Amino acid sequence: MASPPTVDPEVFYSKLPAFHVEPLWRARGLMRPAPGREAVGCVWRYDEVRRLLLESGDVVTAAEADRRVLMLLNPGLDGAAAATANLYAGLQLVLPGEVAPKHRHAAAAIRFIVEGDGAYTAVDGEKSVMRPGDLVLTPNWTWHDHGNESDGPMIWLDGLDIPLVNKLDVPFFESPGEDRQLLTRPDDASARHWAQGRLRPLWEGDWQRRYSPVVNYPWTVTERVLRDAAADTDGTPHDGVVFRYTNPVDGGHVLPTLGCAVQLLKAGFRGAAHRHTSAAVYHVVRGNGATIVDGARLTWGPGDTFAVPGWAVHEHAAGDEEAILFSFTDEPVLESLDLLRTAPADRQEA
Amino acid sequence: MASPPTVDPEVFYSKLPAFHVEPLWRARGLMRPAPGREAVGCVWRYDEVRRLLLESGDVVTAAEADRRVLMLLNPGLDGAAAATANLYAGLQLVLPGEVAPKHRHAAAAIRFIVEGDGAYTAVDGEKSVMRPGDLVLTPNWTWHDHGNESDGPMIWLDGLDIPLVNKLDVPFFESPGEDRQLLTRPDDASARHWAQGRLRPLWEGDWQRRYSPVVNYPWTVTERVLRDAAADTDGTPHDGVVFRYTNPVDGGHVLPTLGCAVQLLKAGFRGAAHRHTSAAVYHVVRGNGATIVDGARLTWGPGDTFAVPGWAVHEHAAGDEEAILFSFTDEPVLESLDLLRTAPADRQEA
Amino acid sequence: MASPPTVDPEVFYSKLPAFHVEPLWRARGLMRPAPGREAVGCVWRYDEVRRLLLESGDVVTAAEADRRVLMLLNPGLDGAAAATANLYAGLQLVLPGEVAPKHRHAAAAIRFIVEGDGAYTAVDGEKSVMRPGDLVLTPNWTWHDHGNESDGPMIWLDGLDIPLVNKLDVPFFESPGEDRQLLTRPDDASARHWAQGRLRPLWEGDWQRRYSPVVNYPWTVTERVLRDAAADTDGTPHDGVVFRYTNPVDGGHVLPTLGCAVQLLKAGFRGAAHRHTSAAVYHVVRGNGATIVDGARLTWGPGDTFAVPGWAVHEHAAGDEEAILFSFTDEPVLESLDLLRTAPADRQEA
Amino acid sequence: MASPPTVDPEVFYSKLPAFHVEPLWRARGLMRPAPGREAVGCVWRYDEVRRLLLESGDVVTAAEADRRVLMLLNPGLDGAAAATANLYAGLQLVLPGEVAPKHRHAAAAIRFIVEGDGAYTAVDGEKSVMRPGDLVLTPNWTWHDHGNESDGPMIWLDGLDIPLVNKLDVPFFESPGEDRQLLTRPDDASARHWAQGRLRPLWEGDWQRRYSPVVNYPWTVTERVLRDAAADTDGTPHDGVVFRYTNPVDGGHVLPTLGCAVQLLKAGFRGAAHRHTSAAVYHVVRGNGATIVDGARLTWGPGDTFAVPGWAVHEHAAGDEEAILFSFTDEPVLESLDLLRTAPADRQEA
Repeated sequence: MASPPTVDPEVFYSKLPAFHVEPLWRARGLMRPAPGREAVGCVWRYDEVRRLLLESGDVVTAAEADRRVLMLLNPGLDGAAAATANLYAGLQLVLPGEVAPKHRHAAAAIRFIVEGDGAYTAVDGEKSVMRPGDLVLTPNWTWHDHGNESDGPMIWLDGLDIPLVNKLDVPFFESPGEDRQLLTRPDDASARHWAQGRLRPLWEGDWQRRYSPVVNYPWTVTERVLRDAAADTDGTPHDGVVFRYTNPVDGGHVLPTLGCAVQLLKAGFRGAAHRHTSAAVYHVVRGNGATIVDGARLTWGPGDTFAVPGWAVHEHAAGDEEAILFSFTDEPVLESLDLLRTAPADRQEA
Repeated sequence: MASPPTVDPEVFYSKLPAFHVEPLWRARGLMRPAPGREAVGCVWRYDEVRRLLLESGDVVTAAEADRRVLMLLNPGLDGAAAATANLYAGLQLVLPGEVAPKHRHAAAAIRFIVEGDGAYTAVDGEKSVMRPGDLVLTPNWTWHDHGNESDGPMIWLDGLDIPLVNKLDVPFFESPGEDRQLLTRPDDASARHWAQGRLRPLWEGDWQRRYSPVVNYPWTVTERVLRDAAADTDGTPHDGVVFRYTNPVDGGHVLPTLGCAVQLLKAGFRGAAHRHTSAAVYHVVRGNGATIVDGARLTWGPGDTFAVPGWAVHEHAAGDEEAILFSFTDEPVLESLDLLRTAPADRQEA
Repeated sequence: MASPPTVDPEVFYSKLPAFHVEPLWRARGLMRPAPGREAVGCVWRYDEVRRLLLESGDVVTAAEADRRVLMLLNPGLDGAAAATANLYAGLQLVLPGEVAPKHRHAAAAIRFIVEGDGAYTAVDGEKSVMRPGDLVLTPNWTWHDHGNESDGPMIWLDGLDIPLVNKLDVPFFESPGEDRQLLTRPDDASARHWAQGRLRPLWEGDWQRRYSPVVNYPWTVTERVLRDAAADTDGTPHDGVVFRYTNPVDGGHVLPTLGCAVQLLKAGFRGAAHRHTSAAVYHVVRGNGATIVDGARLTWGPGDTFAVPGWAVHEHAAGDEEAILFSFTDEPVLESLDLLRTAPADRQEA
Repeated sequence: MASPPTVDPEVFYSKLPAFHVEPLWRARGLMRPAPGREAVGCVWRYDEVRRLLLESGDVVTAAEADRRVLMLLNPGLDGAAAATANLYAGLQLVLPGEVAPKHRHAAAAIRFIVEGDGAYTAVDGEKSVMRPGDLVLTPNWTWHDHGNESDGPMIWLDGLDIPLVNKLDVPFFESPGEDRQLLTRPDDASARHWAQGRLRPLWEGDWQRRYSPVVNYPWTVTERVLRDAAADTDGTPHDGVVFRYTNPVDGGHVLPTLGCAVQLLKAGFRGAAHRHTSAAVYHVVRGNGATIVDGARLTWGPGDTFAVPGWAVHEHAAGDEEAILFSFTDEPVLESLDLLRTAPADRQEA
């Protein structure tokens, strides 16, 4: 079977590039046995990033910066603008009086408000004033603009699918040079009209789009629901009392490419270990704790952001008081493409 | 063409029954040009039915009656136990200490609580205490039982799809002779866990059933959502500020055969006229007003129940104060079967 | 508990009709423990009905009859125009030169061609010439007309959901007084373009309707598929080598209210017994056999039609040669409404 | 507003890497205005690649090569194993007696047979013998193996979503070291049982998976359907008489990540220009023609493979005889993620 080659391999291989072909049998890394997981578990401390962010106010003006954001870069991804393989995260500062002009892009975004009170986002004709803990959606290709009409700084976590959109090579971006879009609906109309996902406002008519009609999921509601449920259940072994934010029209994820969740870990909670191909970026709303990711212990406290890459074994633990975590994930992408896979794992030492 | 028949028609027709065939050309009413609409618009006054209901407490015991319900019969349907062609409605009285034993049936039911406080319904292992304005579901073939543990009478509106289930000839009923089912979940767990339809409790796992997982949609929430929306919008031309109750899992109707809605008509509201093949039974939660149905003016006030048959031209009007109407409908049935049809209509004189 | 009533029951009950209410506790038959099954298993012999049908050509002209159809009436349904609770069946004769003028109705129809060659049905702008074994759809509210341009009689089985549509009280019918509709597509275009359900003709664009875009499912294809599969499998225990006709757009039933199937029972096949809430009307394409329905043995041969009511225990058996049965059913209705239920059963003696 | 920075920017920027953050305002290329389209339109000539492929039989044995495949590399993608941003294509040679042992991977694959007769693919327990023009699916994570039991060489086009799966970092691969999997179904059972997508084989039961149950879509059927339709229509302005291969269970794409189509361009066909974010790899089954891609004219003939990248303006033209093209695409991916966008374009000069 292993008779010597009758053609000089080197001669053969040297001919191939001219024809734009290459042998599969020399492309050793092409079909990998498991995710490469270059991304690693990591934490961005809020006090550190916040300090740098405020300092950046003295480095560039908002107008110069266009967006005053510090992107959170996963140390394993070699400088790529990504917190995990497919997810982008950044902390954005908007100072009083600053404006992010009207624009839209193929990348979808979520914002989770960290501090400040009084900045707004306008999306598709509706303006929403944001408060800490609010989740604000700016879906794929919707016009949006931001501004801070309060007298204090505003900081929020940006979550986008930029790495995904760029890797798929389907980016689009438009910025028509107007500060603000025309408002065509009452402020926060969607939050009020769809206030109760179980009651559908029929005057809103059919909703044919693929994303949630709700601009702002306010924290006041989220927290009440979390607390009521926590009085009643311990939730899941891995994630405690955990809710997925949903699109009330169909009960699915809020966006086709980004999912969001919020979870309460009771004091002393020690979660079971598992892994799944989806990755997540977490933001600590309240409490202290630690997450062991592939054997490395990440401790976290209020305001911190941390990343759990896809297929990393992980387990969460709360400290002596309850903790609340917000997270966003690429789970909807992997679900849609039938590439979501989950596996249990042994408890880790760390 | 119209040559005289060569066979004696009477001889021919007389032969047919033996073969279980009949000529289509003699079945004149078979294919009708439009709904026959035997059901008519009608109102059941709450003070009258309530008085009879309380009186019935002296006629039969709950044990004798099994269910102390006065069925609301549409005057056009010739004594059938139906408020419209496909919908059953009844007012049920449960006196202190009375119990409706555990049972289940193919007919699906909704309850809308009219007065009293402290009676319960248990459904599939979960008990819910009911208060006025609450909507309670007992879906097709779920075990349920009721009881009144308070010290006052409890009255609710029963809405079922009995006429539909019987006409399709698919009834089933089981009553194992036990007063109460085993409770396997905390009281009102579903209402709390799915409290906010926009947040999905992930510890509840997949939900493969065709009906809403929520047992009780409490009035406190419904009223707040109605009021908030009314501050903001006039809603639809026909129905004012109207919400459909939905299944939070998929955003659809609460049950495959019954839909529910609640609407606020602002003071002085005068709705546009239209008609649709679906019928509805309305319960007046608050306020006074009138609904013109096929030219007949039905006035209504608090606690009254009224029926609008399928394909009847109708328009609602509120009096000098706002009115709130709850309703249930066979719209999901007609939607599923592609038999839902809607048409505008001219304003009626009445 | 059983203290004597303090109100005279007869006085009480006599007051109720004036208020359009009746006591549930006196409506004994309202909630039945199981389907009442007034419909019975029964066979209509083709030679008998065919003879009567041809004879009817001498009784009335097509113009007088509008449709020369002998309806197949279930002996248990007391003269109702129904073969089972929800299904209508009829055998239609169209003589050379006769025409059934353009019309449409809310009831949906299927036709299964029994004999003759050269009559046509036109549906929504497309004309299809029909041959024995072809299945032709005329969905809810589509314009259709028929005619016989051949020189021989044409007989087909009509299957409709008339009982359902009438019971739901949503009939509509229009007949504008024109013999033929305008043809806007090539003859049999849908059968050719969607010839292979696995290949979707993209020039047909989106298909938003709820029914199959295919007008005619020709027998030449059906028979080949049946035969090929039969070389390979015995199919299911109850129904042998059985295929459901599907809507190629979504893989579902051909119509929202009527399902169709075709099955090959190999020589000597003896099917297992079961029952389900859906009913079916069968047409014998080929072969002899028997179906035991609730203990009664129905023997059948080529051209015969027989009915199996909902919830009737039934089992099929083929004779010494293979048999092929076409059937239509109300299964899609019960599925949509979550009222489809199936149960195994013991083999019956008959 | 543009006051000079009060912090030395260079000092500031040099601090950031230690905290794993970077300023968004210096990441200029992150949000691009439109797809970068590094991939270019290109053709791989069949006679050239075929010659190299046969020559490779003398360079390595199948055992050494594991898979004797020449990957088709898009010249614009800098050596990446990709024909377009998200699609992998290769031409595979299997010599008589050679075997590709049992394995499975997260990447999904389609094969389109180019020449030879008698090699097989086995998928999930079913073996299929492949002939020119057949489309064979090996969905995500299904066990499969190939072998050539004929006495001639076999060449097919491999289409996979490897670039997508690797970019999302969700690869998996298993190869248990067995040449062949156990066959649990008759050869080509799925092709026969689902032969006619409009007829569903009920004995196959529910199908819960996300991909088509059909292993082989044989050319004999495809060609007949193409030819019949071409007698009847010119199809679409852009693609002529074009069919999408579908999953007969739900009418959707054959795989969640790969779509397939086949189109007949009549002699002299000159297609309209347009573009869409999805890319495609085409294989010329028959005929000669040219496709203008972003202004560059790609001529093609029998057996050639060519790529049209996402968002490239393109238009097809057939020569003096009809042409038939097979293609596979990432359209299902972009559809699922709501990132599919289409735009008309002006006719190009080339």
